[in-house]
Amino acid sequence: MRALTVSLGSRSYPVLVGRGLLNSPEALAEFLPGRQVLIVTNEVVAPLWLRHVRRSLDGLEVASVVLPDGEETKTLETLADVFDALAEHGFHRDCTVLALGGGVVGDLAGFAAACWHRGVACVQAPTTLLAQVDAAIGGKTAVNVTAGKNLVGAFHQPLCVLADISTLSTLGEREFRAGLGEVIKYGVGLDAGLFEWLEETLPALLERDPATLEETVYWCCALKSRIVVRDERESEGGQRALLNLGHSFAHAIESATGYGGWLHGEAVAAGLVMASRLAVDLGTLDGADAGRIEALIAAAGLPVAPPPVGSGLLREYMHRDKKIIAGRLRLVLPLGIGRSALRDDVPAPLLDACLAAADPR
Amino acid sequence: MRALTVSLGSRSYPVLVGRGLLNSPEALAEFLPGRQVLIVTNEVVAPLWLRHVRRSLDGLEVASVVLPDGEETKTLETLADVFDALAEHGFHRDCTVLALGGGVVGDLAGFAAACWHRGVACVQAPTTLLAQVDAAIGGKTAVNVTAGKNLVGAFHQPLCVLADISTLSTLGEREFRAGLGEVIKYGVGLDAGLFEWLEETLPALLERDPATLEETVYWCCALKSRIVVRDERESEGGQRALLNLGHSFAHAIESATGYGGWLHGEAVAAGLVMASRLAVDLGTLDGADAGRIEALIAAAGLPVAPPPVGSGLLREYMHRDKKIIAGRLRLVLPLGIGRSALRDDVPAPLLDACLAAADPR
Repeated sequence: MRALTVSLGSRSYPVLVGRGLLNSPEALAEFLPGRQVLIVTNEVVAPLWLRHVRRSLDGLEVASVVLPDGEETKTLETLADVFDALAEHGFHRDCTVLALGGGVVGDLAGFAAACWHRGVACVQAPTTLLAQVDAAIGGKTAVNVTAGKNLVGAFHQPLCVLADISTLSTLGEREFRAGLGEVIKYGVGLDAGLFEWLEETLPALLERDPATLEETVYWCCALKSRIVVRDERESEGGQRALLNLGHSFAHAIESATGYGGWLHGEAVAAGLVMASRLAVDLGTLDGADAGRIEALIAAAGLPVAPPPVGSGLLREYMHRDKKIIAGRLRLVLPLGIGRSALRDDVPAPLLDACLAAADPR
Repeated sequence: MRALTVSLGSRSYPVLVGRGLLNSPEALAEFLPGRQVLIVTNEVVAPLWLRHVRRSLDGLEVASVVLPDGEETKTLETLADVFDALAEHGFHRDCTVLALGGGVVGDLAGFAAACWHRGVACVQAPTTLLAQVDAAIGGKTAVNVTAGKNLVGAFHQPLCVLADISTLSTLGEREFRAGLGEVIKYGVGLDAGLFEWLEETLPALLERDPATLEETVYWCCALKSRIVVRDERESEGGQRALLNLGHSFAHAIESATGYGGWLHGEAVAAGLVMASRLAVDLGTLDGADAGRIEALIAAAGLPVAPPPVGSGLLREYMHRDKKIIAGRLRLVLPLGIGRSALRDDVPAPLLDACLAAADPR
């Protein structure tokens, strides 16, 4: 097991990465402020992991809510269901909400914890690769409203993050590979050493070798933690924006295909390739490095081009994105492998050439 | 106009108390981070004050939501309506939610601001005496759920509080007097000087003399601010609990009469008398001071006894209150006029004798 601390003063918390954490009463119960625990999970994860967690919490006052799977669960209505469960069991200010699942469960349960009695403890137990390396760390919680994703939420740091590598063994192949999209993003945008490690160990990763996974997840958690510590609340022009490498393209792809068509990590993978090509055109990345990025993404079985939805549609969605300030589109672009920066001066013709990859041939 | 600062580091903000603030573009617009303002108000306040505020915000991008009046408005459903309004007008991270109304509007609008884009600016413009001296300051926001009041919310400090004394001239007589219940609470629990000031100036207050009101509201805001600064998030055993003098009784009275029967400030007034009598029995308050407290409350036209709902019912609601820790009822009681303390050692027979005031004669 490996551990790191997200250092945020009185809101500091540990991130544990290892095998069998959900079966460990010590790991699970050590951090709880009180005896009441509401486990929030979904119908896919519950049959696989809920009884393990309940057994580890034996002796405490434990209740659970099992939500439907999928992004469409992340609504105010489902949030009200979680509040009802907390109320029904008489859960107080010193209760803990334990999020057992992927990003949707983590976002929703985390937001419920942020609001119940104006803030109770939350433990994030992410069970997908994507949530382990990204969503579970950093305190961003939210639900979707009709007008858009994650428009309603809170910054609410968890009490601890338990990334149990064992849960990755039960993940579907497509979802696992999509998680690699975010993993590769960390390498491209923040750490050349990680990128090289991924080039070397990709076969072991794809076979889900536990030791390789543990090292990789820990590495990404450390990178995410470093950014969160410097920019807890995603300030204007802050470090946290760098985590959005490839994401402006990805969000447009997800919107254009209707959420559910492409997985988030798949869209991020294609977005990384698009950002790389744009960076080559801008002269911030050399062609050989762009080739390595594309090759790694292809080897991970992830898309290297956007779907043929048309460049016009992608452009439209990119301009609706909330990352536009004063009419200028802002994009995170790689400066070589392992470094990235926010640019708001991309010439329109270069962006057009990049988006043309989405035009049907 | 008077001004004070609630000193909370990066979350510090000014409280302005004065006449005509809502008609002052300077007071209203000075603090806004961006150009988008959503005014949240209700059907009682809107006809009286909305156009004044809109005029003061002339030149900005202003929208408004007018909610039904009353505590039953403070729900997750109404909250969703406010989010819809924010979405409909394309309001971004740098928008401001302006709460124009009493405690219900302030709590709901403040919570909407806490959640929109994970937290946007909020200006509290309280229009009732109760909200000006209490609810608008301190960052507590919430909505009610079926299981109870204020169970879902956030601590979200406003950008500024504008207590416009002029709005008190349009307040109904009963609501105005109920506000005095909270004002008297500050005197009894925290400040003998304020208590004496209230004894002297009560006739002028009841006539709503603007200068007397301004001084009184400012005084209460300063007391509340001092407590909030010491205990921003209502920690266990912290100073903020002292603001609950009389409130354990008051909440039980409100529950027993069904919310709406008694106004909150009326219940607080009766609760203050009950707390005083209990303090006399415990020996922490002398009888003469208890007599002064009761006399002031009576002179303000507020109830000095609970409604005849039966002591058993009141006791039951008091034990359901969230202020119970480890089975011990905790009550704030006066230690003389102007001082108070939290006690968890009240002998049951003394509490019974106090609650007997609610038994039908």
